[in-house]
Amino acid sequence: MSEFKLGPLNHVGVAVPDLEEACETYRTLYGATDITTPFDMPEQGVKVCFVNLPNAQIELIEPLNAESPIANFITKNPKGGQHHVCFEVDDINQAVDEMNKRGATVLGKPRIGAHGTMIIFVHPKNSNGVLIELMETPKGHH
Amino acid sequence: MSEFKLGPLNHVGVAVPDLEEACETYRTLYGATDITTPFDMPEQGVKVCFVNLPNAQIELIEPLNAESPIANFITKNPKGGQHHVCFEVDDINQAVDEMNKRGATVLGKPRIGAHGTMIIFVHPKNSNGVLIELMETPKGHH
Repeated sequence: MSEFKLGPLNHVGVAVPDLEEACETYRTLYGATDITTPFDMPEQGVKVCFVNLPNAQIELIEPLNAESPIANFITKNPKGGQHHVCFEVDDINQAVDEMNKRGATVLGKPRIGAHGTMIIFVHPKNSNGVLIELMETPKGHH
Repeated sequence: MSEFKLGPLNHVGVAVPDLEEACETYRTLYGATDITTPFDMPEQGVKVCFVNLPNAQIELIEPLNAESPIANFITKNPKGGQHHVCFEVDDINQAVDEMNKRGATVLGKPRIGAHGTMIIFVHPKNSNGVLIELMETPKGHH
């Protein structure tokens, strides 16, 4: 197993109150042409889509309901805001082991993320208030 | 002049109370090996360095003094937090014109950014609470 290190910055997660309106902003204000079709992730309580940039993505995230883990964020930030930063890693189990070994707080168990690969979140207190997502690089994307 | 559109996601700006400590976090917790030497930008009231990832950067930003534009952010978020997202654009003057034409609020005049090219900031109210930096792509990086 190779040494644990951060891979590419996969995406920046932005929580928004209205996904369609947010897409429209990226389309009409910034000229984004490649925005994926929104889809629900009911087990995570969110609806998401991606603004594809040449090297990375903006993940727009709308709460599906009041129980969504994003709902509280939107209550505190009604216009939305930066929610997390996602880095790719080679192996999610190695990432969990290393985070635990290095004293960081991993939030929940590894689970399937919006890209279909395993993800974890590391508590913002471990990284200057920034919620960090670690995501296994999709196979074939190396 | 080509049509205005977003280029690559250049960096995510993270405001931190202590730059050295933040570098140490990226080094020891996440295994980042390529972190630039911190330097002061007195005209912007900040000290910055970059965590280089394969496709993008994390810009760590510490306020230089109490008058720093980042000082207030750190008062509100003592541990730090995600401060802005920076996208590259072909031409900063075109970007200013398009932002104005499209009704967005550009904060201040175009100025030299940490990469030595011209930058502007667009008010968070225009993009779901996210402060957006637009930065002219360094020449030779196309």
